[in-house]
Amino acid sequence: MSEEEQVVIHGLVCPRPLAHDETVVLGHGSGGRMTFDLITKTFYPPFSNPTLLRGDDAAVVERPEEGKLAVSTDAHIVAPLFFPGGDIGRLSVAGTVNDLVCMGAQPLWLTASFILEEGLPLYVLQAALESMKSTAEEAGVQIIAGDTKVAERGKADGIFISTTGVGRIPPGRDVHGANAKVGDVVLVSGTLGDHGLAVLAARGELGFEAQIRSDVAPLHGLVEAIFAVSTDIHVLRDPTRGGLATTLNEIARQSGVCIEIEETMIPVDPSVEAACEMLGFDPLYVANEGKLVVIVGAGDADVVEAAMRDHPYGTGTKRIGVVCEAPERRVLMKTGIGGTRVVDVLSGELLPRIC
Amino acid sequence: MSEEEQVVIHGLVCPRPLAHDETVVLGHGSGGRMTFDLITKTFYPPFSNPTLLRGDDAAVVERPEEGKLAVSTDAHIVAPLFFPGGDIGRLSVAGTVNDLVCMGAQPLWLTASFILEEGLPLYVLQAALESMKSTAEEAGVQIIAGDTKVAERGKADGIFISTTGVGRIPPGRDVHGANAKVGDVVLVSGTLGDHGLAVLAARGELGFEAQIRSDVAPLHGLVEAIFAVSTDIHVLRDPTRGGLATTLNEIARQSGVCIEIEETMIPVDPSVEAACEMLGFDPLYVANEGKLVVIVGAGDADVVEAAMRDHPYGTGTKRIGVVCEAPERRVLMKTGIGGTRVVDVLSGELLPRIC
Repeated sequence: MSEEEQVVIHGLVCPRPLAHDETVVLGHGSGGRMTFDLITKTFYPPFSNPTLLRGDDAAVVERPEEGKLAVSTDAHIVAPLFFPGGDIGRLSVAGTVNDLVCMGAQPLWLTASFILEEGLPLYVLQAALESMKSTAEEAGVQIIAGDTKVAERGKADGIFISTTGVGRIPPGRDVHGANAKVGDVVLVSGTLGDHGLAVLAARGELGFEAQIRSDVAPLHGLVEAIFAVSTDIHVLRDPTRGGLATTLNEIARQSGVCIEIEETMIPVDPSVEAACEMLGFDPLYVANEGKLVVIVGAGDADVVEAAMRDHPYGTGTKRIGVVCEAPERRVLMKTGIGGTRVVDVLSGELLPRIC
Repeated sequence: MSEEEQVVIHGLVCPRPLAHDETVVLGHGSGGRMTFDLITKTFYPPFSNPTLLRGDDAAVVERPEEGKLAVSTDAHIVAPLFFPGGDIGRLSVAGTVNDLVCMGAQPLWLTASFILEEGLPLYVLQAALESMKSTAEEAGVQIIAGDTKVAERGKADGIFISTTGVGRIPPGRDVHGANAKVGDVVLVSGTLGDHGLAVLAARGELGFEAQIRSDVAPLHGLVEAIFAVSTDIHVLRDPTRGGLATTLNEIARQSGVCIEIEETMIPVDPSVEAACEMLGFDPLYVANEGKLVVIVGAGDADVVEAAMRDHPYGTGTKRIGVVCEAPERRVLMKTGIGGTRVVDVLSGELLPRIC
């Protein structure tokens, strides 16, 4: 197809003329027939399951037979809606799944509430929903309840999706941010900064061409692979907004410890590194959407590292540091030239915002 | 205070000059220090509870000891953010609480995800959060998880709040839209259309002065009062977007029955009725946020009606109709002059949108 026959809408490359020219209108949010049509024709086909199709005010599900419940929520906004490696649909499912699995939970159910901007082409919505569907299938979760509102043109930005997840924490698992212990090993599942740079590149804001793909992915399988080989997992965290630096600072603060990482061990993709260097960004502060930080007792570090490397989303796992006693609530980095510097949290806005 | 000393921002009347001139900036959504400050200074004080304060990726809660779980989600958008009788904060809590109680559930936990527009005055956010707090306290639910994103100026509309609720359905309760039975009685807990007209009035879109207050309220207490006197409750539903007409049509469709209502029994506040007449609106299609439709076995209708009238949110309860066999999936209304007409669902957009 020649370039003249394509248009890019919300980051989605489409043939021109558009096959489907229907758009979201205010009536789709009225609660009447148009809302019913939108729900039954556009939302039910990808998300079809008996609980959702019942169409009541709330979904009714059986209580899990054992374990505690984990509950997490996230609002998802991104421009463009579609970018190399992902889109807002995949992001909205993976983001909440990852928050659940970072508490050791097995995701069970998701809810999704949508705010659509008047004028949004319906095929853009459909493409996002299809992506939610396939990501939910990958993660083994059901979308059991939803809601849609329509905002006037210029009062929203295409599609906003808030997802909430409920999961079950099997007995015996106890991972949380305050659980890092002196002597623990810090692992990260792969290269840092891919998501943030991919979104910037998709916006044309890098000022040069770059083949960078977002890492957005649900990490339930990687987490289960870890629990399959170790009962000594202390902290799991996905380094999203604010990047690895912010995530490690949160853990250091919650656990009252120092985390010491080694600059030479931090995995960064060469294209991301080059782009960051040209733009003056630090990949430690750039968002990831498919990476996992694992803090594990030293005795299990080797088996956990090996299990992670065996999983498709963990092939690039690196051992990047250790948990120390002091200075408390700090993250330090041994630099490549032998020095040590404090790695602080992001203050203000580092990048043109990507979420 | 004279009018010159006041400003109205997002529907909130404030003294001028503004005491707090801090606004939401993009950095508040970066995930770094500014996000941390916003969360700890603005969100934690009203919502403080041990589960939320733990600050992990997901909240961890104990599984209820018995009963099924109900899960519901709603996106809340309204302009202005503050209106007579309510605001987006009260709306966001009551809306989701009411979806849970309409399944017979006792609300346990809420999550809240916020999309804030760059430039929003922080005191407007604080006022909305205080309102969420007091409504959550009224409803006896804890807000256990949250998330905040910031959209660029002009890419959102002040504050959007998506709430998700989890509740416990005590054993023995079975209310759902497909459960209306021929011979059942239809009750409604009070006047219709108050919320929709109050929001329109607050926008100055009525073209005349009107003292109409929104009915937005959490209905957990009203529902528990009903279950306290009857085990023969078949359907509960809150007639929000699309109004009573749309809600009854949904029930008629789900249950495969006809619902016949009497025009003279439909409760409408005189100011709402006058405003609707002048504007050509039908209060049957206007949104409510604190009303309940109850479909109950005929034998229990009297005790349920009495129990509803005894509750502060049900003093205006009326018996408005009955469930019949045919024509299936239809709502009919006996008019004041002795005729019968079909009451259809809302098609398209009746009103200037209010949500």
